[in-house]
Amino acid sequence: MDLMNRINRGLEKAIAHATSTTQPPTICAAVKHAVFSGGARIRPRLTLAVASACGDTNPEAADAAAVAFELMHCASLVHDDMPCFDNAGMRRGVPSIHAKFGEPIALLTGDALIVLAMETIARECALTPALTSPLIAIVSRAVGTPHGIVAGQAWEIEDDIPLTEYHRAKTASLFTGACAAGAVSAGHDPQKWMSVGAALGAAYQVADDLRDIAGTADEIGKPCGQDAANHKPNYAEQNGVEATLIRLKTLVGNAVDSVPECPGAPMLRQMIEGEAIRLVPKKLASFAA
Amino acid sequence: MDLMNRINRGLEKAIAHATSTTQPPTICAAVKHAVFSGGARIRPRLTLAVASACGDTNPEAADAAAVAFELMHCASLVHDDMPCFDNAGMRRGVPSIHAKFGEPIALLTGDALIVLAMETIARECALTPALTSPLIAIVSRAVGTPHGIVAGQAWEIEDDIPLTEYHRAKTASLFTGACAAGAVSAGHDPQKWMSVGAALGAAYQVADDLRDIAGTADEIGKPCGQDAANHKPNYAEQNGVEATLIRLKTLVGNAVDSVPECPGAPMLRQMIEGEAIRLVPKKLASFAA
Repeated sequence: MDLMNRINRGLEKAIAHATSTTQPPTICAAVKHAVFSGGARIRPRLTLAVASACGDTNPEAADAAAVAFELMHCASLVHDDMPCFDNAGMRRGVPSIHAKFGEPIALLTGDALIVLAMETIARECALTPALTSPLIAIVSRAVGTPHGIVAGQAWEIEDDIPLTEYHRAKTASLFTGACAAGAVSAGHDPQKWMSVGAALGAAYQVADDLRDIAGTADEIGKPCGQDAANHKPNYAEQNGVEATLIRLKTLVGNAVDSVPECPGAPMLRQMIEGEAIRLVPKKLASFAA
Repeated sequence: MDLMNRINRGLEKAIAHATSTTQPPTICAAVKHAVFSGGARIRPRLTLAVASACGDTNPEAADAAAVAFELMHCASLVHDDMPCFDNAGMRRGVPSIHAKFGEPIALLTGDALIVLAMETIARECALTPALTSPLIAIVSRAVGTPHGIVAGQAWEIEDDIPLTEYHRAKTASLFTGACAAGAVSAGHDPQKWMSVGAALGAAYQVADDLRDIAGTADEIGKPCGQDAANHKPNYAEQNGVEATLIRLKTLVGNAVDSVPECPGAPMLRQMIEGEAIRLVPKKLASFAA
């Protein structure tokens, strides 16, 4: 089955478990809006691509981990868009959760998605119980404190922000975890795969910074210039467009080179290079080729 | 070991895993403040008391589940106190998280505690992997949507609030889950224990409503009259103090009567009755006896 079909089917199944006609209707609508308003599903595709490259011996576990990473990513966007952080009214080209449903529901929607991510792994690994703890541990490390997304966001309120650690925690941790989870779900050692995720995550952050200063609102589904507006460090702003494109190419190259030898390696390397081109703002694409 | 010692040791171990000298310092301080600023630890004591009554055959799993329920409870208090909900500046007699550390950190602290609760179960059940999925499922059901705390909070923004379902989701779900987790950790059927938790949770909500209208700020660690200020339904306000005391006695009686026969049943029944007296505002204690 196509990776995107597996992801969508998994997300629909997870959301069906988390919603009910007897629950308060607004949060039900908000949870669906947060998950099904577009999104490139980059992280779960990475989990499934790594699992496939490793033989995909436990596809239910791989699907569950992929879904968990996408739900965690959606949760982080919902909370990050709230007025006390980025105060972003648009996301993926539609109103953000707090803009559409109010702040209390946005807060609860993020919480619900975090819980649902973990619950999905526990439920779907019922037949592979030895995988539940390792996968929950990988997801937790990528999301929580001391070094996951939550820690990354928490750097933003400190006076001295260590840029590398900030980006590693806020962005790369999910990519690293997504790769590790794909390997573990297929019974492979996650260590070898973590450097692929770390390089990809760093590349994604650099591309995101680039799109914030050189993209268009249509292209990225939200206003540009948000980092400057929110006084957040931005690699492209600090180093210029040309140096940023070079850095992006280097990081993508590192990711490709880090893919361990395995039957699915050529396919995965090709996928990584394809993704990388999509990340560059259209007007810079010719420079990036 | 005394139940309270087990809980405190478990919480300290969990927090040690979630904090580090290389993480952003404010969230580190906030997570500790959220967990170690008092609190009666009612839910984790319930988990351990039920586990003990069932023979406590896997004490590490019981401890992990107890810690997870307390961390989830702390997370819900942090988010519930935020300006978009109760806007409460005091909690457990000290400043609430957003009052002390700001809104962004409060939002992240709740997220971190939710992740840590799940992570703790996954880590501590490494030697009893068959328990990880059932315990995560029980915690998720108690906390998430469609019927856990998150759903309970989400009822507050609806126009028509079904009082029984609201209180069941917002308060009783954690008590029901705490009992079920205690039984499961010791290899017992959770079904029989869920009615104990449901009755206790309902009793706790009634007592909480009573304390909000008839307690003192010193006694409850936060200002009284919050339900009226926040337009939240309150059982004691709707039914009067006398009827509320009768309802409380009935619910505690139901909880005691629901305790299944087992070696630890007499101890547990005694503990429930002892807890119930502590829940009544001091000035009403003579009426409740």
